[in-house]
Amino acid sequence: MTVNVESKLEEFLKEDIGAGDISSSLLPEKYVRAKIISKQDAVIAGVKFAETIFNIHKCDVQILKNDGEKIKAGGCLLIINGIAPTILSCERTILNLLSRMSGIATYTNKLVQVTKRINPKISVCATRKTAPGLRYFDKIAVELGGGIRHRMDLNEFVILKDNHIAVYGSIENLIKQAKSKYKIIETEVDSLSDALLAAKAGSDVIMLDNFSTEVINSTIHELTKLGIRKKIKIEISGGINIKNISKYAKTTADWISIGAITNSVSGIDFSLDVIS
Amino acid sequence: MTVNVESKLEEFLKEDIGAGDISSSLLPEKYVRAKIISKQDAVIAGVKFAETIFNIHKCDVQILKNDGEKIKAGGCLLIINGIAPTILSCERTILNLLSRMSGIATYTNKLVQVTKRINPKISVCATRKTAPGLRYFDKIAVELGGGIRHRMDLNEFVILKDNHIAVYGSIENLIKQAKSKYKIIETEVDSLSDALLAAKAGSDVIMLDNFSTEVINSTIHELTKLGIRKKIKIEISGGINIKNISKYAKTTADWISIGAITNSVSGIDFSLDVIS
Amino acid sequence: MTVNVESKLEEFLKEDIGAGDISSSLLPEKYVRAKIISKQDAVIAGVKFAETIFNIHKCDVQILKNDGEKIKAGGCLLIINGIAPTILSCERTILNLLSRMSGIATYTNKLVQVTKRINPKISVCATRKTAPGLRYFDKIAVELGGGIRHRMDLNEFVILKDNHIAVYGSIENLIKQAKSKYKIIETEVDSLSDALLAAKAGSDVIMLDNFSTEVINSTIHELTKLGIRKKIKIEISGGINIKNISKYAKTTADWISIGAITNSVSGIDFSLDVIS
Amino acid sequence: MTVNVESKLEEFLKEDIGAGDISSSLLPEKYVRAKIISKQDAVIAGVKFAETIFNIHKCDVQILKNDGEKIKAGGCLLIINGIAPTILSCERTILNLLSRMSGIATYTNKLVQVTKRINPKISVCATRKTAPGLRYFDKIAVELGGGIRHRMDLNEFVILKDNHIAVYGSIENLIKQAKSKYKIIETEVDSLSDALLAAKAGSDVIMLDNFSTEVINSTIHELTKLGIRKKIKIEISGGINIKNISKYAKTTADWISIGAITNSVSGIDFSLDVIS
Amino acid sequence: MTVNVESKLEEFLKEDIGAGDISSSLLPEKYVRAKIISKQDAVIAGVKFAETIFNIHKCDVQILKNDGEKIKAGGCLLIINGIAPTILSCERTILNLLSRMSGIATYTNKLVQVTKRINPKISVCATRKTAPGLRYFDKIAVELGGGIRHRMDLNEFVILKDNHIAVYGSIENLIKQAKSKYKIIETEVDSLSDALLAAKAGSDVIMLDNFSTEVINSTIHELTKLGIRKKIKIEISGGINIKNISKYAKTTADWISIGAITNSVSGIDFSLDVIS
Amino acid sequence: MTVNVESKLEEFLKEDIGAGDISSSLLPEKYVRAKIISKQDAVIAGVKFAETIFNIHKCDVQILKNDGEKIKAGGCLLIINGIAPTILSCERTILNLLSRMSGIATYTNKLVQVTKRINPKISVCATRKTAPGLRYFDKIAVELGGGIRHRMDLNEFVILKDNHIAVYGSIENLIKQAKSKYKIIETEVDSLSDALLAAKAGSDVIMLDNFSTEVINSTIHELTKLGIRKKIKIEISGGINIKNISKYAKTTADWISIGAITNSVSGIDFSLDVIS
Repeated sequence: MTVNVESKLEEFLKEDIGAGDISSSLLPEKYVRAKIISKQDAVIAGVKFAETIFNIHKCDVQILKNDGEKIKAGGCLLIINGIAPTILSCERTILNLLSRMSGIATYTNKLVQVTKRINPKISVCATRKTAPGLRYFDKIAVELGGGIRHRMDLNEFVILKDNHIAVYGSIENLIKQAKSKYKIIETEVDSLSDALLAAKAGSDVIMLDNFSTEVINSTIHELTKLGIRKKIKIEISGGINIKNISKYAKTTADWISIGAITNSVSGIDFSLDVIS
Repeated sequence: MTVNVESKLEEFLKEDIGAGDISSSLLPEKYVRAKIISKQDAVIAGVKFAETIFNIHKCDVQILKNDGEKIKAGGCLLIINGIAPTILSCERTILNLLSRMSGIATYTNKLVQVTKRINPKISVCATRKTAPGLRYFDKIAVELGGGIRHRMDLNEFVILKDNHIAVYGSIENLIKQAKSKYKIIETEVDSLSDALLAAKAGSDVIMLDNFSTEVINSTIHELTKLGIRKKIKIEISGGINIKNISKYAKTTADWISIGAITNSVSGIDFSLDVIS
Repeated sequence: MTVNVESKLEEFLKEDIGAGDISSSLLPEKYVRAKIISKQDAVIAGVKFAETIFNIHKCDVQILKNDGEKIKAGGCLLIINGIAPTILSCERTILNLLSRMSGIATYTNKLVQVTKRINPKISVCATRKTAPGLRYFDKIAVELGGGIRHRMDLNEFVILKDNHIAVYGSIENLIKQAKSKYKIIETEVDSLSDALLAAKAGSDVIMLDNFSTEVINSTIHELTKLGIRKKIKIEISGGINIKNISKYAKTTADWISIGAITNSVSGIDFSLDVIS
Repeated sequence: MTVNVESKLEEFLKEDIGAGDISSSLLPEKYVRAKIISKQDAVIAGVKFAETIFNIHKCDVQILKNDGEKIKAGGCLLIINGIAPTILSCERTILNLLSRMSGIATYTNKLVQVTKRINPKISVCATRKTAPGLRYFDKIAVELGGGIRHRMDLNEFVILKDNHIAVYGSIENLIKQAKSKYKIIETEVDSLSDALLAAKAGSDVIMLDNFSTEVINSTIHELTKLGIRKKIKIEISGGINIKNISKYAKTTADWISIGAITNSVSGIDFSLDVIS
Repeated sequence: MTVNVESKLEEFLKEDIGAGDISSSLLPEKYVRAKIISKQDAVIAGVKFAETIFNIHKCDVQILKNDGEKIKAGGCLLIINGIAPTILSCERTILNLLSRMSGIATYTNKLVQVTKRINPKISVCATRKTAPGLRYFDKIAVELGGGIRHRMDLNEFVILKDNHIAVYGSIENLIKQAKSKYKIIETEVDSLSDALLAAKAGSDVIMLDNFSTEVINSTIHELTKLGIRKKIKIEISGGINIKNISKYAKTTADWISIGAITNSVSGIDFSLDVIS
Repeated sequence: MTVNVESKLEEFLKEDIGAGDISSSLLPEKYVRAKIISKQDAVIAGVKFAETIFNIHKCDVQILKNDGEKIKAGGCLLIINGIAPTILSCERTILNLLSRMSGIATYTNKLVQVTKRINPKISVCATRKTAPGLRYFDKIAVELGGGIRHRMDLNEFVILKDNHIAVYGSIENLIKQAKSKYKIIETEVDSLSDALLAAKAGSDVIMLDNFSTEVINSTIHELTKLGIRKKIKIEISGGINIKNISKYAKTTADWISIGAITNSVSGIDFSLDVIS
């Protein structure tokens, strides 16, 4: 269960409508039927939120494609029955949300499918590189595409990154201090030697940032030799995308995290049409 | 002058920090210097907001590249002096905003440059296809890239679209009703004949949606013959992007509007590094 | 369609009720019927908002006079059925809103009737001289009285006023700069010569501020001689009220704008009475 | 001390500026001096809030007339030094607030002066007939004009009105119930006999609503005869204004309360002029 | 009637649920029945708010013990029917609110019962020593336990305390100034002589802070001798609790106010159990 | 770093001050010095927030006892220099926050000291049984007392409780489903056999709820025999308090969690005194 999502959706609507939709207010308060169709193949994400917005504004809705389902170009995902000016005032906000979320879900899903085919044990994760104000929606879209949401915010668990280590001085001491206060610690490293240091210092997860697949393999090999591979989760990241992910999927890392999933979103093209 | 932007920026920061950045809180309250560099060629957008966030949290900032200026890959746009954990807690939110805004400005700028080279009289406009909650920031990025922001919301002025006309019945009567209440009326049409109908009915702007360049030219020709070309502004839209815009720039339309500017943003890759 | 009006209305109610209406809470939760009557002749404005407030708080309502309709002193506009303490807790907030809005609508309507009788082509406009926090409601009341709402805020379109020109230096250059960025430009002037300067520089609307009717006529005459009268809209303002508006209605200006409509409101006297 | 007034003032400013003041943004970021002058004789109210708004936006201010002081037509109340576009973006909001508050203070002051000249023991009070959302500001303006603010909201203390009594049935039992739960009880009555009933039942204050001065005097006479005049405060109200208040001031009531003070406000005319 | 309580309750829920209850989201959307039982004898407070929360989230509720009623250890106060994950997501917030409020009501009730048995004329009052953000709920719990809520905030009426007097200098002059602006004045004193000074200066209520019962009696005796006991209310406070209240209840003070009621709350232990 | 704490503190202040502190507004705007002293031995928590509130309102502050430090009865923790009415308007809100937070820190500290003396490896944890709206402050107080904050909200990590298991049916399947989606899983059990089931199913943490120390020991013994003690963290809870905690500290559990820390808080008694 979540709270306050409705007020967030209303805020989105308010942003588009401003002090009132003066174009739609010219129309009669006529009851019509409309549909939303996708102009591209996609994994749908956001249709539940579309329903929520329409319901708040007293339009009935019939969902033909649920969140997480695939749609073909030209397919219809939603039928709306309601007062014409209301439907049209909601149109752009809903399409914008559907477009971004489905863009994220569709791209995530492609990455997951390539990865799982090669190595079913690796999961694809999102990062905190989300659009400001949209993290909740971006992360849900990732989950609908089959990915793992990862940290929602900086309070969730500790990840020690290059800048933290640079400021603190010693990677080992920083990990030890963190372990004394929190249950799970992840450390981001940029060399094999630092990976080993972090592992020995007790970091529960090691993120290998911008490692070649060769060095990823060597790192995992060294950890195995030290008998600590099983205690540690390995996350890899850095410039991974749909073109090169198959290469990374062949390693034995646990997680692949990909900023582009939420940072470079190609919106899916949807349209809303009044049909009667 | 604008109001409440600071509270919006704080809301973004709050989204990322949650109940507190537990990783950075492990660090000493040490005074450090850091820089933000771009990893790609870009038009910078958002650096003023970055400054605002850092200033609120008592970090000093030196801007090396202002909003609207170009940067080369590897170039530094911002130097920050402040308490280390504070800088690091702000890092991701600021990079996310810079990334999206600069992505929009950079792409807009490419479209504007191609267009202006061919036809300096045509302007490139954004649409309302922005990310929910980010319209203000998206539109400013468009302006920094040299584009026209277009409507901020549905209260700004009237645009009559296909669905409005479908509900109302008669395009001419709808335009007349709109003219009786508002000063400026734009009408979106999908055929030459509707364009002429709208023009005759008094629409001040006509948006030719998904017209081929040939039909755009014919439409303008017909309006000229009717002696009403000068009274009317012509906007064209529909699937226009960096690959095909030069073709549209050869018409004598007044505005080209492009949804992809804000709907399919490739974020620019920035990083923040502590340097001492 | 508009958004968030309900939360604004609840905020108004909250202002009056504070931490709870301790007088009404002494009453039994008895179901009663009440009516709102007007003690003066008026044009009703705000009854839809009254309905919204009562509906939120589970009172049924029957509207006898709709927004924009005229009522005679002693007439009943609204019947309410609901729990007595609830109706009484809402009473003052609703009467206050009805009183102000109907005061505005009634006065606007008088101005419009005098004007239209003399010159049906001139419209009566409100200004931005509204009560802080009430612009949305004040402007709707103006529309219900038959007036034009004019700019909702400073983002809507450009009006260059005396202070802008004083700061910028040249009226012509300022208009040119504005035209390069925005679609429609209005300029406020205080002399015939400045009116001509602004018109020649391309201002789409000229506001003649504090002009005598003689100079208004001369200005329009000069613009006609220059062949640019038709391209330009003329707005007149400055100390116009119900006593002197007929004089201004005899000019051929397009709009008369009047600050007093919203700046000096005589509230209409309404009362709510429990009838059974 | 009060809290959150700044955020309320920013909300007022936001209402006028919207997504940004596009007219003032055309101006250079030039440092100028401006003044606010009154075009009418007035009692100033709101100048402290004007200072707060300007200070938040980094303009310096010199107050020449403080809240509560009188000004002559043509007099200057405030000098502002700051960036031109900022001053102009704040202009209308500040003038609107000053105009309403000074209108209230000026009218209250006239009522108080007439009253005090006749009977220095009677106080002039405002009512809850304030503009929605502006009660705090309206009531402060009343105090600056020399009036008593009366109840801020329905939680402050109990006043039993005609509708409460109608619902409850017995005026005496309702007063008794109220006395058992709260410290001070006021009762509004519309006849001499009800006034006596309320007084005997223990109401601490009696409001004589729409009584002629003759009946006011008789009521007070009866209470005196019963030996309870001293225990009870007498408030009178109903259609009292500047034209007839001297008649009411000749009674020996304690308070005169007047809805028109805040319900029918004639705004004072102020202007802001850039002077260099 | 009160306003905005729902949004406060939703804020409480949001605090506990955060971005979503990930544990309960693992459960099927199954319809179940649950009950809330008390593990201690208690006076129930907060069950209406529990109902409100459940109703907002579409769970039906049957209240077995109303606010203000007594419950025995093991007794059931509420039956809930609804979707399992929703009920469980609301569980902790509702139990926390019930626990605190019932803790306050139960303790207040004990104090009231001891006091009334000895002296039915003395009332037990709460103070402003409430948990930040919870005053409204704490004060309602006090009333449900049979106590008097006292001031909701510092705007309600004037109480002059030691620090006010220390800053102002003269207790008598301060009281006189206060009387000239406000209707009711209370003064807190810490000696018999100050009590008499305050009474003579016209303070309507005198709070005897940290007085022994002997000095309380002497003070009341002196006031009686001066013939002003009846015009003045006497409030006593300072370290009074369930162990020593019977001693204070034997004085002839009017009110006993006790900070510990809201400042040191022992939460009542409730549990929610799914029963089918 | 945290965000928005200031606005939360201002909200607390607003709750106490309402529309304005009418008592303190009677005082001259005199500059004074005041101190806050503790009337009991305590561990201080909240003094940083006190400083923040005073600083926002332009009072200077000198902290004599920092958060987490111990103070003796009669000791002074804070000196304030500022305008008298401002200090007094902030007094109650600040004392209320200090009182609750220091009450929590002091009690937590007692529990931690008893525990650590017996078994330095066991940590004392808070629960989600915090006062609604105060979780952030309650949890910080726990940390200042030497305790572990545990989950901030239901989004942080998964804990499967009795009701989850009752709804889902199978404890093992529920754990497996949870493990497939989230990194760390805790399970609450109420019998030795369920503890073993949960452990075998892969739960990373097992909470033994309401176990006697004997059964706690047997459970740990069984897990050790199964060779999975080291992979699993053991948390114990249920009716543990300062009187019985030494018994539980003798087990080899990892964490003791105690609801009473935040659910039954005895506020520390502080006072603010103007000293010159």
